Amino acid sequence: MEPMPAQFEPPSGTRDFLAAAVEEREHALAVIRRVFASYGFEPLQTPAFERLEVLLGKYGDEADKLVFKILRRGEHEASGEPDLALRYDMTVPLARVAAAYGSQLPLPYKRYAIGPVWRADRPGRGRFREFVQCDLDTLGSSSLLADAEVLCAHHDALAALGLADFRIQLNSRGVLAGLLEAAGVPGHLGPGVLISLDKLDKLGASEVVTELAGRGLAKEAAGELVDMVTAADAGQRLRATLARSERGAAGLAEVDSVLALARSQIPGDRIAFSPGMVRGLSYYTGPIWEFTAGQAGSIGGGGRYDHLIAQLGGPDVVGTGSSMGLERILPLVRGGRAASAGRIDVAVPVMTPELAGRSFALAGQARAAGLRASVYLGSSGKVGRQLRWAGDAGARWCLICGPAEQEAGAVTVRDMQTGAQTVVPASDLDGHLAGLAGRAASPGGATA
Amino acid sequence: MEPMPAQFEPPSGTRDFLAAAVEEREHALAVIRRVFASYGFEPLQTPAFERLEVLLGKYGDEADKLVFKILRRGEHEASGEPDLALRYDMTVPLARVAAAYGSQLPLPYKRYAIGPVWRADRPGRGRFREFVQCDLDTLGSSSLLADAEVLCAHHDALAALGLADFRIQLNSRGVLAGLLEAAGVPGHLGPGVLISLDKLDKLGASEVVTELAGRGLAKEAAGELVDMVTAADAGQRLRATLARSERGAAGLAEVDSVLALARSQIPGDRIAFSPGMVRGLSYYTGPIWEFTAGQAGSIGGGGRYDHLIAQLGGPDVVGTGSSMGLERILPLVRGGRAASAGRIDVAVPVMTPELAGRSFALAGQARAAGLRASVYLGSSGKVGRQLRWAGDAGARWCLICGPAEQEAGAVTVRDMQTGAQTVVPASDLDGHLAGLAGRAASPGGATA
Repeated sequence: MEPMPAQFEPPSGTRDFLAAAVEEREHALAVIRRVFASYGFEPLQTPAFERLEVLLGKYGDEADKLVFKILRRGEHEASGEPDLALRYDMTVPLARVAAAYGSQLPLPYKRYAIGPVWRADRPGRGRFREFVQCDLDTLGSSSLLADAEVLCAHHDALAALGLADFRIQLNSRGVLAGLLEAAGVPGHLGPGVLISLDKLDKLGASEVVTELAGRGLAKEAAGELVDMVTAADAGQRLRATLARSERGAAGLAEVDSVLALARSQIPGDRIAFSPGMVRGLSYYTGPIWEFTAGQAGSIGGGGRYDHLIAQLGGPDVVGTGSSMGLERILPLVRGGRAASAGRIDVAVPVMTPELAGRSFALAGQARAAGLRASVYLGSSGKVGRQLRWAGDAGARWCLICGPAEQEAGAVTVRDMQTGAQTVVPASDLDGHLAGLAGRAASPGGATA
Repeated sequence: MEPMPAQFEPPSGTRDFLAAAVEEREHALAVIRRVFASYGFEPLQTPAFERLEVLLGKYGDEADKLVFKILRRGEHEASGEPDLALRYDMTVPLARVAAAYGSQLPLPYKRYAIGPVWRADRPGRGRFREFVQCDLDTLGSSSLLADAEVLCAHHDALAALGLADFRIQLNSRGVLAGLLEAAGVPGHLGPGVLISLDKLDKLGASEVVTELAGRGLAKEAAGELVDMVTAADAGQRLRATLARSERGAAGLAEVDSVLALARSQIPGDRIAFSPGMVRGLSYYTGPIWEFTAGQAGSIGGGGRYDHLIAQLGGPDVVGTGSSMGLERILPLVRGGRAASAGRIDVAVPVMTPELAGRSFALAGQARAAGLRASVYLGSSGKVGRQLRWAGDAGARWCLICGPAEQEAGAVTVRDMQTGAQTVVPASDLDGHLAGLAGRAASPGGATA
């Protein structure tokens, strides 16, 4: 493949999707939508951009720097000031919608949002500036059933895509709070300690202990904390420790409830209590979970966020949700999609210029029978050249009407796989095409 | 409905789509995609934004003013300069893609592009700043079959959406050139004269004659020109006139060819030669067509543009295409979609807190049978309240498992339409749910 001249490349961090890539992506999104809908989640679509004041200041300065801002227009363009910005996630628009349409929305409001978001991150391997996020959230229910539901729907979507080798780590902000209490971590050190604990997977136990000590935690307390969440018998000792703290005990009960609910629908070894899993974002208030897939690491996650919608400018309503990035998941979809089915089922060569109209009509007849069909649009009159085009387009059959067929009131149907040709009287063609359509649609057929 | 507080409105000219609207739009787009694919057109998706220099200067200053420009980021933000812009149409990205991937693309390249475009037009009734365009184009074929194909695919998509009361006006730039020649219009007045002729529908014959005279055309020539394209016998006289001009005769032959091809697949009264139809854009070079629907006026159109791709910065390749706006078509879709199917087929109340897990699992069992199902997420233990929720969610059935059912190892299935209740042993539930799934999927069923 020749390198692409720079002036024809898509903007940095974005991609063009040609046919095969579009089909792979749309297939995956259709599966995800179907699973979300099967749980009674309903779709929501919001504009690509929001007013600047809706977006900025919601996730801190670092996030604000990654927002794509849109310049004011017309006479205001010269000001160099932005007034709009491309959406950065699906949650800020959800908060705005919850505020705008409150009483028109069902309660609880179970919605999914699937679409591109834009972040001016430094582009890198698997990291894009335009990427597709698939979110599902339930607003207005404080029941743990709601947490278990978004978690299970997220799981079922991955399973329906054919992912098998993935795991779910389940924890709760209450468990983490209880752990900090038990280890005697002073309140002001709490957030920093959690950030360090979150790195256990990457850094390993001893380096995290060192980092915790650097944050001002006594070396002994740091060691005990790390032991508790990593030791093989973590379960028993940890449970005993947590039972002594009110928040810890409540968090543990949450985890156990969600675990029991989820295990009614998820293979038991796929989901486990992971007391060391922190899930960075500080807005979570209850159960939290993360989906991981071996080398790929985190492929999504979520949790309960009972104050976030209000913090984002929406109404004071509790919520829970789960989110995945299409780009993270697609490489893991087992074997990708079945090999491309070709662009058409039926190709119709043009044997002579006078018969172009007849060929055009034949393609229409094939489409009416439910087949994808196209007439030859090139200028070559050579049959071999036209059959090569038919093969390149993935056609399973050719409908050929040359002067001889026209004279005989017939059409030659050529099977492109076997080369076998059948002469079909024009009066029988509809029935014959219906038969081909049945074969095209059946497993192993042209569109399988 | 209460008015929405301004700070929660979507940005001017954009809209939020709640569930019913998303479903209506997605349904229409799926129909359009299916028809386009049935002709062998393949999908293309490009980023929401392009580099500024790719977009600007392609359609003139007026269009450039309507482009949403994106501010540079990071340290460059303070410059107030843009470097990216939201896509304004689907054709500039097509030109870039044709240049970038030339040899990887099939020849001819038949592609469709469906997605939002953004224009900072003054918002108004039916005019939005974010709207969905559905384009199909064929690059690399100079055959009139290619023109007829995009025209027929466009027609079939509208027909598949249930539109019946629409018409197609067909003309050719050659016919228009021949007309100007025949009426003795000086070359430099040509473009202006066409702009005036294009207003015949709106202004009527006498006003257009006046406008033509204002442009410097002799009153008599202006009258003859308007007569020719509007008189009841336009066909015969016009054909005789055009036959005397080389370009006119060629244009007429083009129109007749496309008309014959299209009529093999389109009811004959739906498409007609319209010698006065100009279709504003000056880049067209061959056949042109416009779809109109009574009061709604133009609902799409297209034509051959053999130099446009090169003018837009792409390779020197011939092309033809047709385009429609989703927003123009949706109001005409007959009766809209069937009434909403409800969000779920099966609702599962929670009869006691202890049985929440059992209810959660029952919803999963219903989904495994192919039904959309959700457990009750609210806090009320009252059965009446929960049944009301089930009704609001559009559920056709409730699965009820209270202490009595649990004791008996059974589940009560309530038909929400009739109120009839059936007690089903847990061991028979899978079979029973499969039966419900069959009814839900059948015409007249819950998801019909």
